[in-house]
Amino acid sequence: MARPKKALLTPDLIVDAAMALGDRHGNFTVTQLASALRVHPSSLYHHVTGREEVVDLMRARIASTIDDSPVGVARWDEAFERLAWSYRAAFAAHAGSIRLLATSRVRDSGTLAVYDRISAMLLDAGFPSSKIMPMIVAFDNFVIGSAFWVADEPVDAYFEVDADMHRSLTRIVEDFEDEKTAAQVAFGLGLDALLQGFRVLLTREGTTPITPEIEVAP
Amino acid sequence: MARPKKALLTPDLIVDAAMALGDRHGNFTVTQLASALRVHPSSLYHHVTGREEVVDLMRARIASTIDDSPVGVARWDEAFERLAWSYRAAFAAHAGSIRLLATSRVRDSGTLAVYDRISAMLLDAGFPSSKIMPMIVAFDNFVIGSAFWVADEPVDAYFEVDADMHRSLTRIVEDFEDEKTAAQVAFGLGLDALLQGFRVLLTREGTTPITPEIEVAP
Repeated sequence: MARPKKALLTPDLIVDAAMALGDRHGNFTVTQLASALRVHPSSLYHHVTGREEVVDLMRARIASTIDDSPVGVARWDEAFERLAWSYRAAFAAHAGSIRLLATSRVRDSGTLAVYDRISAMLLDAGFPSSKIMPMIVAFDNFVIGSAFWVADEPVDAYFEVDADMHRSLTRIVEDFEDEKTAAQVAFGLGLDALLQGFRVLLTREGTTPITPEIEVAP
Repeated sequence: MARPKKALLTPDLIVDAAMALGDRHGNFTVTQLASALRVHPSSLYHHVTGREEVVDLMRARIASTIDDSPVGVARWDEAFERLAWSYRAAFAAHAGSIRLLATSRVRDSGTLAVYDRISAMLLDAGFPSSKIMPMIVAFDNFVIGSAFWVADEPVDAYFEVDADMHRSLTRIVEDFEDEKTAAQVAFGLGLDALLQGFRVLLTREGTTPITPEIEVAP
């Protein structure tokens, strides 16, 4: 029996090529995408409606690697914490595309559904609804900004210190003693601080007491 | 009296061209830089030692637009807050170059001097020296991640919500009522939260009481 001819182009292959361009050059045009796939630009339109849809598909693919299962199950702060590490790893794997994705409107249904569940989680936790959008954007910005440098590098990869010129900076570089990398420790510490600040916001302005759906071990 | 001939190339012109390439393409090679300046690559080496020095000069130029005057003068949290807004604006003006700068080692003396003063400020405030490096990196990451989207856009520029599909997300988009943009409010809220978390860290693990050098109005 004759096998069906292998399709020359699929949405998945288009996203592969767009991701490669984004990761390498930070952006892409439909012309560049067609050229990378060795097809005429018009062929792309048989599979996607245009560049915006390709960006949606890129976001959806990255989002599919993020573990959002704690959202709506664990307590809000525990959920944020677990989500954050997975979210950072997913974007770190596509650091070149971060700016493109961070500055495009979120339109893909999978990602929107996750933001919807995060919104519901924070409403349920008692955060004032007028503060939830900026909370989510601030959380996003911290994670995105942290995704650039996740490499397993020693702390002096960050600063070229001169022990005579920069005595305080030299001291804090030397006093950083952790078996984890500075990037990891910084992310953990910043995340803790951010969530601590959100907790204070909830205490001061929350509309209902915190009622965790499941008990979290202390 | 004959005027001196206008120099064809200066470090300033090289940085102009590098910044334009970085902002547009996210990166540059020495060959691309020479081509943009219409000179032979070897001409560049009369003015700079190489690509790394050009990146240093780019960072130094952006840093020169940041108001770091509160560092070491205002209380640490006040200083961080004022520094953050200026820092974000400086990088937002060069969003395309953010990744390049965020992933290169800091080597220029001006920026190193600012990090040294921030380190001294946090040591003086009583933060444990082993925690200061991750605090600074977390602060950096938050500011850098927030610099991508500072545009004066309405909140629905972020998410294309469907009122039936995403009820919670729709509600928080609608309940965001602030005369400032979501980007501004998110940055202010995230910064407050981060500094609140740092205050908790200081209270729990600080080695000396907070002794502000100047009185900050309540």
